[in-house]
Amino acid sequence: MRIDVCMRVDDITEGKLNGATAVVFDVLRATSTIVTALAKGCRGVVPVAGATEARKQVSRMRQKSLQVILGGERGGQKLEGFDCGNSPLEYTGDEIAGKIVVLTTTNGTKTIRACEAAARVYIGSFLNARAVAERLYGENNDVTLVCAGTEGEFSLEDAAAAGLVVQHLVSLAGEHSLGFELKMTDAATALGRLAAGYGEDISRSLYDSVHGRKLLGLGFKEDLAWCGKVDLYDIVPRLDRGEVPIII
Amino acid sequence: MRIDVCMRVDDITEGKLNGATAVVFDVLRATSTIVTALAKGCRGVVPVAGATEARKQVSRMRQKSLQVILGGERGGQKLEGFDCGNSPLEYTGDEIAGKIVVLTTTNGTKTIRACEAAARVYIGSFLNARAVAERLYGENNDVTLVCAGTEGEFSLEDAAAAGLVVQHLVSLAGEHSLGFELKMTDAATALGRLAAGYGEDISRSLYDSVHGRKLLGLGFKEDLAWCGKVDLYDIVPRLDRGEVPIII
Repeated sequence: MRIDVCMRVDDITEGKLNGATAVVFDVLRATSTIVTALAKGCRGVVPVAGATEARKQVSRMRQKSLQVILGGERGGQKLEGFDCGNSPLEYTGDEIAGKIVVLTTTNGTKTIRACEAAARVYIGSFLNARAVAERLYGENNDVTLVCAGTEGEFSLEDAAAAGLVVQHLVSLAGEHSLGFELKMTDAATALGRLAAGYGEDISRSLYDSVHGRKLLGLGFKEDLAWCGKVDLYDIVPRLDRGEVPIII
Repeated sequence: MRIDVCMRVDDITEGKLNGATAVVFDVLRATSTIVTALAKGCRGVVPVAGATEARKQVSRMRQKSLQVILGGERGGQKLEGFDCGNSPLEYTGDEIAGKIVVLTTTNGTKTIRACEAAARVYIGSFLNARAVAERLYGENNDVTLVCAGTEGEFSLEDAAAAGLVVQHLVSLAGEHSLGFELKMTDAATALGRLAAGYGEDISRSLYDSVHGRKLLGLGFKEDLAWCGKVDLYDIVPRLDRGEVPIII
């Protein structure tokens, strides 16, 4: 079982994901929001790269009498005419249950769509780190942890969450003897060590990060607190790649 | 003073280095070899990307009666007809003094040549990490720490050495009050934390790395021990970009 990492979305080069299981991390905030919405009973999240495409998708779905919420952000702020922004706290109410969310964000949804070559795509965050690791370990397929980053740059909080999953995988390999070995690339080893360095204080990575500090400045203090909750949920959202790709 | 990092040579995208001071790390083994040779009195190291180009360069220099050593490797092994390989231990003898080394390696020399857009280029390694940090801090220019990596991939030992320089810079900023602030990108913060996690045991990163284990398998145990010596020298080699670029 090989564990690799893409530190930034641009590291997804040709052949990098072929046949592997990809896990996408955009901790602030797309993947935390997706995990939260699905944990609260949302029927599925449709990740869409552009805002115009998102509006069209919602129109098509509403014509089919589906109950849809249009969510997304640019520059951290809710888009005009959208029902919700990209704060996970907007997706915690009972009204989310049974509805489909069409979501477009600056980095996260683009990264999810960039993982086309992967055998499967899961959604990772601090909120479900242990559940993700257990799923990966149980499946014993090669894994690439994909950090979305921020506008093409490396993001500390995504790396820390991916590193936490590496740490959990190492623990699981130590607890069990399933007859296979973890083959870690240096990038995976580095992120595992990064997470180990934070230890119990891993949610601090959100406050150390440039993007986290930007969101604090925009007034999203409670979002950081939420996105830093470790193992709140045991769900592992998966991208279902039908005619309309949807995370369930 | 902005501190940024290129995790791999391919991260040197257009505009990434403009005006900044670049420090190249290829700990196993090119930059450790360059630092060692210069510390031992070598007159300069000419970094050359290709083996054919290196041979031609040596011929031209010998025609001018310069005393030249032709060094380099591919796949970790000395190239045919070369005087030396890429082991720093081949460059520690008294015979190195006053001579020019023409060096070609798989990753390191290419990375040095890829830093053309930087205002200046320094050579970093564990051997001179503190000296590099002190130079950078004293100059107060924006800095990009460039990890060479291995065949396009992230390398743990280069990241750890760059992280050690970040740590030293943070310490220096704590000790002095020069009226400027360190503005670290998330990549710089992450590598600083990686190095902090290793602590006194930072040379272990060479043994944790895929390339380090490959070199151990090829019999270069003593090279790893040498390249892991922290702050053995206080020199900061600099690329002098004349007609023939040379590190002095």
